[in-house]
Order: sequence, then structure tokens, then C-alpha cells
Amino acid sequence: MSLKDIGVAPPKGFRDILPQETVVRDNLISTILETYRSFGFERVETPAVEDVRRLTHSDGGENLSMLFKILKRGEKLDLSKPGTTEDSITDLALRYDLTVPLARFYSNHRTQLPPVFKAIQVGPVFRAERPQHGRFRQFYQFDIDIIGGSAPGDETELLTASMAAFSKLGVKNGTMRINDRRILSAMVEHAGIPADGAAAALVSFDKMDKVGLLGVRDLLVKDGFSEASINTFIGVAESVEKLPVTARLEEINRQLGAILSPDVCSNLATIIKGVRLSEGNTIAFDPFLVRGMGYYTGPVFELVVPEFSGSLGGGGRYDKLIGKLSGSEATACGFSIGFERMVSLFSERLLAQASTQRKIAVFYDKDAAVPDVLAATSELQAQGAVASMFETPKNLKGALDRLKAAGYTEFARFKTGEALTTKSIG
Amino acid sequence: MSLKDIGVAPPKGFRDILPQETVVRDNLISTILETYRSFGFERVETPAVEDVRRLTHSDGGENLSMLFKILKRGEKLDLSKPGTTEDSITDLALRYDLTVPLARFYSNHRTQLPPVFKAIQVGPVFRAERPQHGRFRQFYQFDIDIIGGSAPGDETELLTASMAAFSKLGVKNGTMRINDRRILSAMVEHAGIPADGAAAALVSFDKMDKVGLLGVRDLLVKDGFSEASINTFIGVAESVEKLPVTARLEEINRQLGAILSPDVCSNLATIIKGVRLSEGNTIAFDPFLVRGMGYYTGPVFELVVPEFSGSLGGGGRYDKLIGKLSGSEATACGFSIGFERMVSLFSERLLAQASTQRKIAVFYDKDAAVPDVLAATSELQAQGAVASMFETPKNLKGALDRLKAAGYTEFARFKTGEALTTKSIG
Repeated sequence: MSLKDIGVAPPKGFRDILPQETVVRDNLISTILETYRSFGFERVETPAVEDVRRLTHSDGGENLSMLFKILKRGEKLDLSKPGTTEDSITDLALRYDLTVPLARFYSNHRTQLPPVFKAIQVGPVFRAERPQHGRFRQFYQFDIDIIGGSAPGDETELLTASMAAFSKLGVKNGTMRINDRRILSAMVEHAGIPADGAAAALVSFDKMDKVGLLGVRDLLVKDGFSEASINTFIGVAESVEKLPVTARLEEINRQLGAILSPDVCSNLATIIKGVRLSEGNTIAFDPFLVRGMGYYTGPVFELVVPEFSGSLGGGGRYDKLIGKLSGSEATACGFSIGFERMVSLFSERLLAQASTQRKIAVFYDKDAAVPDVLAATSELQAQGAVASMFETPKNLKGALDRLKAAGYTEFARFKTGEALTTKSIG
Repeated sequence: MSLKDIGVAPPKGFRDILPQETVVRDNLISTILETYRSFGFERVETPAVEDVRRLTHSDGGENLSMLFKILKRGEKLDLSKPGTTEDSITDLALRYDLTVPLARFYSNHRTQLPPVFKAIQVGPVFRAERPQHGRFRQFYQFDIDIIGGSAPGDETELLTASMAAFSKLGVKNGTMRINDRRILSAMVEHAGIPADGAAAALVSFDKMDKVGLLGVRDLLVKDGFSEASINTFIGVAESVEKLPVTARLEEINRQLGAILSPDVCSNLATIIKGVRLSEGNTIAFDPFLVRGMGYYTGPVFELVVPEFSGSLGGGGRYDKLIGKLSGSEATACGFSIGFERMVSLFSERLLAQASTQRKIAVFYDKDAAVPDVLAATSELQAQGAVASMFETPKNLKGALDRLKAAGYTEFARFKTGEALTTKSIG
């Protein structure tokens, strides 16, 4: 084997992150962290690996078929044993999300944490996805969770903090859609759809955005539900859809109040009234919001902006999951920021901000006195510029082109005894 | 298998990081990043995994026996094949350092990077160390490298930027020790120690700090070198050690100048003169500095402070390594910050800084109007405090104890229609 056989690309499905992008990522992360921290949220970090059994028993759906498993080591590894299986030769695996580790973390450290724990997590997760455009096998998740608290206070604080962060990042026309899983369950029950069909009905209903109410009807027919059920289900949706956004929650309460727990609609109303928003952003009840994950037990929400299809983030209340994952019961409610999407969406905006900064290359000849070059460079830094020293290359023109591509705006040639004169590049 | 069998601790040898420590880590990282960026260094990021063959062929010494290897997936994995080996069933492994990935990164992207590339990397690396106090199987490395440039300009800028970062972190009495590997080689050659004994002689010499010159002599005797060689070797060291620090470089040049490349001592003098330091910190030639890694080819350096045994960071020039690792030749010189050590060392100082911040818990009763609670909390945030909402727990005293442990300094009980009064905790 030689290096040539391996090449210099990252492993298939993985990627390197270049300097221009790390600036955006660091900027996003620090702005979001700072905002949530002012609300009392605290960052925690867990290892990139977990016990492989914790992950394979975590109810992670298709993520479980995308686990990267790590080989046992030393004496524990016996490949010659008859009946060797993946299970018998692996003991760790790379985490596929941040929720399973958070449940373990909380359960492990709860006595050292505040009685209501407000957690921030940001870091890489790993899934052996089939390589495709824009999907990578290692990507960042950015989760914020309140564990051990209660509705509607948690949701109100969580969404206020989230919208404050998005607003600091320049989101001015976002809508936080909010619904409650119990409203969806009530719609299903009200329509006489049997409990074992509820999940399928909601999967179809979730397509509302893409196919409209008529399209949803077709999907429900394909699902095989009775005509009476479909008519009732679509009827409720239709009667609500006709109304202005502000009247919808009351209408749901009027139609489904008999089978809904009485606090569902009042909680939602409190959250909608309570969330503090900067100008231009709104929060609105949306009876058509489902959110995919099966584990939500109460309010669900997601942030959409007109210039981008898909959401910038979302979440909900999941009061049973921590107990299920860790054996240690705790209420919980979380918001997950679509970090990698945010990076693409905000790259241009943040790079434009960054480019207002002077970035100066200071060239010096081989015989120049290095201490003097450095002193001149330091003066530029003291003026607030990025300034970096380079021995003058043979091909100055080519170097300037590459420096320009790397964001350099000016250059200067150091000459002993002369003041430095900077010129614009290109 | 049940959750009970696995427990809730992180996998053996790994650790969770609690909120108090993440504050220190984030603070260190952002201060260091900001400083190096002002000098034109740019952060890059590579995946946590690399091709397992790249790592096993990387000349990584004992790190290679501590690799976490990842199982092949799908059809590529065939456990039933006779002669199954670790190699035949693994294709990836977790990186054990940031240098091998950097060499690959540079080689892969060099046409998109400035002609002299100034890189910052910070992130986790993985080694299956035997679990022991203070050593973990996942820990952060923080490396800064200049690739494609030349001495002594690179070293001068790299060390100036590094000392600026340490100084911002409050290091006031640090000494940057600096030597050149070629001086060590010349000492060995001058003493008539055969080339194949050079590494062993330097390992012994490296113990100077701990055992003194007499101890080094004993070690060299044990190494089996001739009495004449040992006498010459120790003689040079002794004659230099007697002199004041500022006179040592000249003495080395006087004694070894005949076999030293002429630029070695003049480069060192330029670097020592050129590095800019804030008050209290110094840089000093130290002919006794070896630095462990075999790949250094020129200047080597490390930062020591009196209150801490061991170094806060170190590095050197390694002009051959990138070519060896990636097949693509490039000069290079780097500094590696002892990040995990810095975290322990600076925890107290940084936490003391953080504790000057007001951190207020706002308690509200179940029947309070959440929007009003949030409004009152926001007012505290607007005054610059961290402020967080909590539904009043049954055991307020217990909650206050835990909040105090989590860094909360004050609390307030929200009462409708009354101004919030904050009280000190504990």
C-alpha cells in the first residue's frame, strides 16, 4: 500500500471545512451560545461515542441502520470465535444524535445540575447515509433543551430565547408555527380513525404544505381509511383553514374541546401570547404542523422564513423520552436548530459582514529584518486590521490572486526605513 | 439486555463535560481563535475519522496501538470469510492527532489556500489509552501551523501570535524556551556519538530538567556510549550551562560553529530578537530543550510558567513531515497548545471572572401569568444579568442550594403587579 492508493480526499461521505466556512460556523455558534446563556442555558458536552448497546436499543428508527460501530480492542476482540457477529466484536459506536447522549448525561449528573436543567449542546453526529448532494456522514446538531420543568413556562422561555438568537442572526420575517400533538390526536380520534392508523394519518396530514388539503384527502384514501373518517378529518381541517390565523385556535377548541384535555388550548394561547419577539417575527398557531418524530407529547413548533423552503429549526415537548432512554423519568422540551442549513443560508450574509474587515498581507524580502517587519505588521493589527507576514514570493501576482480569494483586501511591501504603504488587492 | 446493564456513565475512559467547564473551554477557545485570526491564521476542520490505512501507515508510534477502528458496513463486511483480520473488516478509524489530517487537508486543498497557509485547528482526538487519572480517551488538541513558509519569519510570527494569546489569557511570567534540533545533532556529532545512537542520547539529555547534568551523565553511561563521547557531550553542556542565558547562543556557535549550518544560530538570534512579548514574558535560548517528537528539523520551542510543571504548549519546524504524510512536499512550522492542561490551570481564574456576572433565578407560581414573568425576566437580562425562569419548586431551599452550586448568585419571586426584588442566594 502507498499513499497514492488512498489519495488525499476525506473518507467517502465526509468533508473538510475550509476557512471561509469556519468563520461562518464560529460566528453562528458564538452568537447562539451567547444568547441562550443570557437566559440561563448552559452548554454541556458528551463524548462522540456511546456504548453500542445504548444506541442499538434507543428506538432510533432508520438511524440504527446507519451506525458506525467501533471494534473491540485487545483481548476482548476474538475474531476466530465461531459465530462471530457484529455485536460480539464491537463495544462502542459513534453517536447518531445528541438526544440519546443528553438523556444519559442528565441521568448520570442530575444531582449536580439545577433542579430544572437548561441544556445547550452543539457538536458532530455521525450517520452512514448513502453519499448524496448536501448530505454528509458527519454533521453538526445544535440542540437546546429544558429538562425537569413544565408547560407553558418552559415553551415560552425556550421559544423567546430561540427567537432572540435568530433575531440576532438577522432573521426578520420568521414565523414560529406552533401546534400540540394532543390536538392532532384529538382530530384523529374525532374522525374515528383507529389508534393503529393514527401515525399513518398524521404522516399524510404532514404533507399539507406540499400537496394541499385535496392532496391530503387522496393520501388518506390511499391509506385505506373509511370515507366517513376522511370526511370528518378533512372537514375539521377545512373549517379551520378558512379562518384567519388568530381565530383558528378557538375554532379547534370549539370543535374538539369535548375530547381535548382542557389545558391544551389554554397552554398554547399562553405560549403564543407570552413569547417575546423582535419586530418582523411572529408566532402563530398552525393546526397543520405535525413534526416527524414520534416521541412528542405536547406542543410542537418550527421556525419558517419565506426565503427558504424547509424550517430553520423546530422541536417540542417530549415528556416520556428521557425516562425511556435513561431509566430516569423527566419532563423535557427542546428546540433543535438546523445548524448546517443555517450555515448555507447565512454564509453570504455573514461573509459580507466579515469582508468589511481590513485583511492585509505584509510582504518582506529575504534580507529584511524580521523584527522590523513584525513591528510594522503589529501596528496594522493595533489599528484593528487582520495583518499577516509573507516572505515575498517569486510570483507575487499569483500569490495576490490566491490571497484575494482567501479574503485579503490589501497588501504592503515592507522596505527598511520606510513607512508601510498598503494598496488594495485586485 | 436492559438499560440497567449499561448504566448511565459515559463509556470507560471517556468523560462528560459539565457546564462550569464548558464556560472555561469556550472562553479559552474564543480568546485564542480571536488572537490568531488577527494575525491572519484561519481555522479549518477535518472529519473525526480518517481512512484506517492512512493512520496505520502514519508513523504514529505508540498511538497506532491505540487506534479506535470502525467496522466496514453493508456488503463490504464479511465476517464469515476465512482469514478475517482487523484489516479486512475495518475501513475507517478515529483520528489520533490533528497533524495527519492537516497534511491530508493541505495536500487536498492547497490550490484553494493562500500560498503560505496559516492554519488553526481545534477539536477532539481519540486514543485508547489505559484509563488513568487525568487521561481520557477523547481529548482536545489545539494546533496552529504555518505551511509553505520559511524560517525565521514563520517562527517569529507564530511565537508572537502564540504569546499574544497566552498574554490575553493572563500569562504574565512565561518563558518561551527555544532551541534548534540541528544544534542537538551537532552536539551529538561533535561528541562522536554514532548516528544510530543519537535518538537515545537525546532522550537521556531531555531528562536534564528532572535529573540535572550529573543524572544525564549516568543515563548516557547506561546507554552504553564511550567515556570519551560522554565527556565531550557533557563538557559542551556544562560550559554552556555556566553562562548567563544571553551568552549561551554565542558560546554554542563558538564551540559547534564548524559543523553547524551557518544560519542556525543567526536564525535563532533573529527569532529571539524578533518575537514581540507583553510585559513579564520572555523568550530564551535553551540548549537543553529537546521536545520529544522525531520529526522536527529546525527550531523547537515550548512555553513554561513557574506555577506549573510541564509546558503550556510547544512545537517546532517540521519541513519533511507533510510530504511524508501526504506525498505533497511542504515546509511547515507549528505550535500546539496544551489545551486540556490550560483548562485545568485556568479554570479557577476564568470562573472567578465569570462569577462577577449576576445570575438570577426568577421563581413563579403555577397560577402566575407567564408572559408577565418573562417580561420581568427580560428586564433583568437587559441590565446585563443572566436571568432564567423556574416554576417555584416545593423544596425551594433545596433548589436554591443546587442553583447556587450551578453559579446562580441571586433569586427573585415573581408576584403579579409587584416589582421584582432580587435577593442574594445563600
